[in-house]
Amino acid sequence: MTSGTLHILGLGPGDPELVTLKAARILGAAPVFAHFAKRGRTGHARGIAAPHLNPAAEELRFDYPFTMDLPVTDPRYFPEMGAFYDRCAETLSACLAAGQDVALLCEGDPFLYGSAMYPFDRLRHRHPVQVVPGITAMSGCWSVAEAPMVHGDDTLLVLPATMDSDSLRTRLQQADAAVVMKLGRHLPRLRGILDELGLTARALYVERGTMEGGHAVPLAGRDDSPAPYFSLLLIPGRQDPRC
Amino acid sequence: MTSGTLHILGLGPGDPELVTLKAARILGAAPVFAHFAKRGRTGHARGIAAPHLNPAAEELRFDYPFTMDLPVTDPRYFPEMGAFYDRCAETLSACLAAGQDVALLCEGDPFLYGSAMYPFDRLRHRHPVQVVPGITAMSGCWSVAEAPMVHGDDTLLVLPATMDSDSLRTRLQQADAAVVMKLGRHLPRLRGILDELGLTARALYVERGTMEGGHAVPLAGRDDSPAPYFSLLLIPGRQDPRC
Repeated sequence: MTSGTLHILGLGPGDPELVTLKAARILGAAPVFAHFAKRGRTGHARGIAAPHLNPAAEELRFDYPFTMDLPVTDPRYFPEMGAFYDRCAETLSACLAAGQDVALLCEGDPFLYGSAMYPFDRLRHRHPVQVVPGITAMSGCWSVAEAPMVHGDDTLLVLPATMDSDSLRTRLQQADAAVVMKLGRHLPRLRGILDELGLTARALYVERGTMEGGHAVPLAGRDDSPAPYFSLLLIPGRQDPRC
Repeated sequence: MTSGTLHILGLGPGDPELVTLKAARILGAAPVFAHFAKRGRTGHARGIAAPHLNPAAEELRFDYPFTMDLPVTDPRYFPEMGAFYDRCAETLSACLAAGQDVALLCEGDPFLYGSAMYPFDRLRHRHPVQVVPGITAMSGCWSVAEAPMVHGDDTLLVLPATMDSDSLRTRLQQADAAVVMKLGRHLPRLRGILDELGLTARALYVERGTMEGGHAVPLAGRDDSPAPYFSLLLIPGRQDPRC
């Protein structure tokens, strides 16, 4: 039997209308779709895909074995996540081997911090795989914030707030434009570094981007309470366009 | 009369099917569309939009006053480009003031190195503006190259090959994953730096991404002849996934 194709679909930053024509076409036709989700939640990618799914499609839901309850520094973290991705890959492979096409749903762009990279690594040499890029969360955020980000020969740096302060300081000092992810409880520390570098006035805090209730405010107007998962900081590049 | 809305539309990296549902809907309805182009060429964004345009729409074409013939270091460059963007903004403003919605076409994402940022800066406080994000050229490229780029706590750096060698070396050394744009005649110099840093084996050269004839090869298999405009270098992040 001929193998089905694994379509790894980037579904964009949240607004279901920011799905591409290609992803919508594949979603509408796929006999099986698969997605990752936190236990007890709908799954973010599943929510974006909902209006576009083939109503007769079979659903494969992969519940993360843990999310916030086991820190990434715990020695069990990577082995258990590895075993989880092995199981996901085997489930997908069984469908593909039976000749079924499968759409694997991904929020944002699959290859920028996406979980789909792990089944991709396991299946790319065993089955036909097609990767459909998606709009990243950061593009969604800077559009909502109406913040032109990167001009001319600007550099853009994307980095997590979880880095140590010295690394954050060195890297942010060199960047023209920056996006800081994984803010969580790091806002006060990050604000201190941006103050030192004279960058606070340029920084924008964006929450939920193109999702319902999404909004952007200057960092100066944001308090230091922990930031939710769907939030990031934008530091736009050159503010005095030469043309 | 009520002003029309300026819709700044990201149209993605080249494949017309990588346009979003939102951009396609707006393109199909807009009574006027506008785009930038090099003299004598169709215009890249115009080509991507073609299958989605309202056939009755009026076209505003903005020919760049110069492209490769005047270097960015020439003292006339920024004043002349500034005057050009002023004229574009006034043309757009006249349509908007007459109550017409206008779709301004942008390849990739408008706020990542896009020309649309300049009319946006000029018109944002004069007319209603909506920015629709698009898939970036780099997302298109790493999807075509089948190269998972950024994992876990990786940083991503986007920078132009036009930087001086010391700056390139320092920044590339600190980055986990990197995208190098504007390769042009800089490939041999860049290769030297990547060799020094032990990064050549990881680097992929991608030409035309999701456009027709797009392809990716390891940098080691690419000669040193000048790279065309639609090309970039990818240095994927962590190559030994821990899970």
